[in-house]
Amino acid sequence: MTETLRLRASVRAADADAVRRIVTATGHFTPAETDVAVELVEERRRRGLAAGYRFLFADVDGCPVGYACYGPVPATAASFDLYWIAVDPARQGRGVGRLLLRRCEASVRRLGGARLYIETSARALYDATRRFYARAGYREAARLEDFYAPGDAKIIYCKRL
Amino acid sequence: MTETLRLRASVRAADADAVRRIVTATGHFTPAETDVAVELVEERRRRGLAAGYRFLFADVDGCPVGYACYGPVPATAASFDLYWIAVDPARQGRGVGRLLLRRCEASVRRLGGARLYIETSARALYDATRRFYARAGYREAARLEDFYAPGDAKIIYCKRL
Repeated sequence: MTETLRLRASVRAADADAVRRIVTATGHFTPAETDVAVELVEERRRRGLAAGYRFLFADVDGCPVGYACYGPVPATAASFDLYWIAVDPARQGRGVGRLLLRRCEASVRRLGGARLYIETSARALYDATRRFYARAGYREAARLEDFYAPGDAKIIYCKRL
Repeated sequence: MTETLRLRASVRAADADAVRRIVTATGHFTPAETDVAVELVEERRRRGLAAGYRFLFADVDGCPVGYACYGPVPATAASFDLYWIAVDPARQGRGVGRLLLRRCEASVRRLGGARLYIETSARALYDATRRFYARAGYREAARLEDFYAPGDAKIIYCKRL
């Protein structure tokens, strides 16, 4: 049986739990970081697009297996941030992340965005993540040494759209 | 008559108007940016320190002539951001900004912070601002070209405390 992947930009009440499940399953984030991911969903549910966060969910049988969260950087002409992108590890390696990222970029372009920024850690845990961004055309625009913790730099990736 | 400058970390209801007045008077910020500055005061009043924003006001005769706003960067071990620092132009050039910045750094140190980040624009309008940060020991840690607008880069300054 072939699974059908559907992309969805609307945000449902149940997505808060789905985001917690997906982000936790990746094993990449602390409980505090996971709480932040869930709060963005709740904030978006409460305030709508005025919250500044847009979402894209990848559903299989109506259930999210991955998602991305992005939005315009306040007080900039055309810069956007990709705040989160995560795919259930059981579903990784099948292009779900690549599809989500490509669709986010298309949405940013439609909204008048000229570049998309992604921040990530330089830790070994994120090696595959960084390769994923590099393959998708992101280049390292800045590196802040010891930003997250001693020896753990923040890398800022950027892609001109 | 000698004016007495008093520093104050508490945040009063009237500070929202004071921040709007000071930030507007500098002539450096758009109305949208000014709204953000005021919102941080209101958010801090509503949620207390849980808002993540700390303030320092420089009062003359009980009236703010300058202020700074800073706080810990979520999900980092010891990184802090200086979100705002502004001094009424009529009071500039007398060390108010330098005093505010020094006291912010001391507070960050007490809170366990190891470095303070400041973001600013590369535009000529901010030449004096950037010299102020350089004199205070901040070095350019990163530069994101075209971040604010075409030709208007974001510079990220950092000082290890």
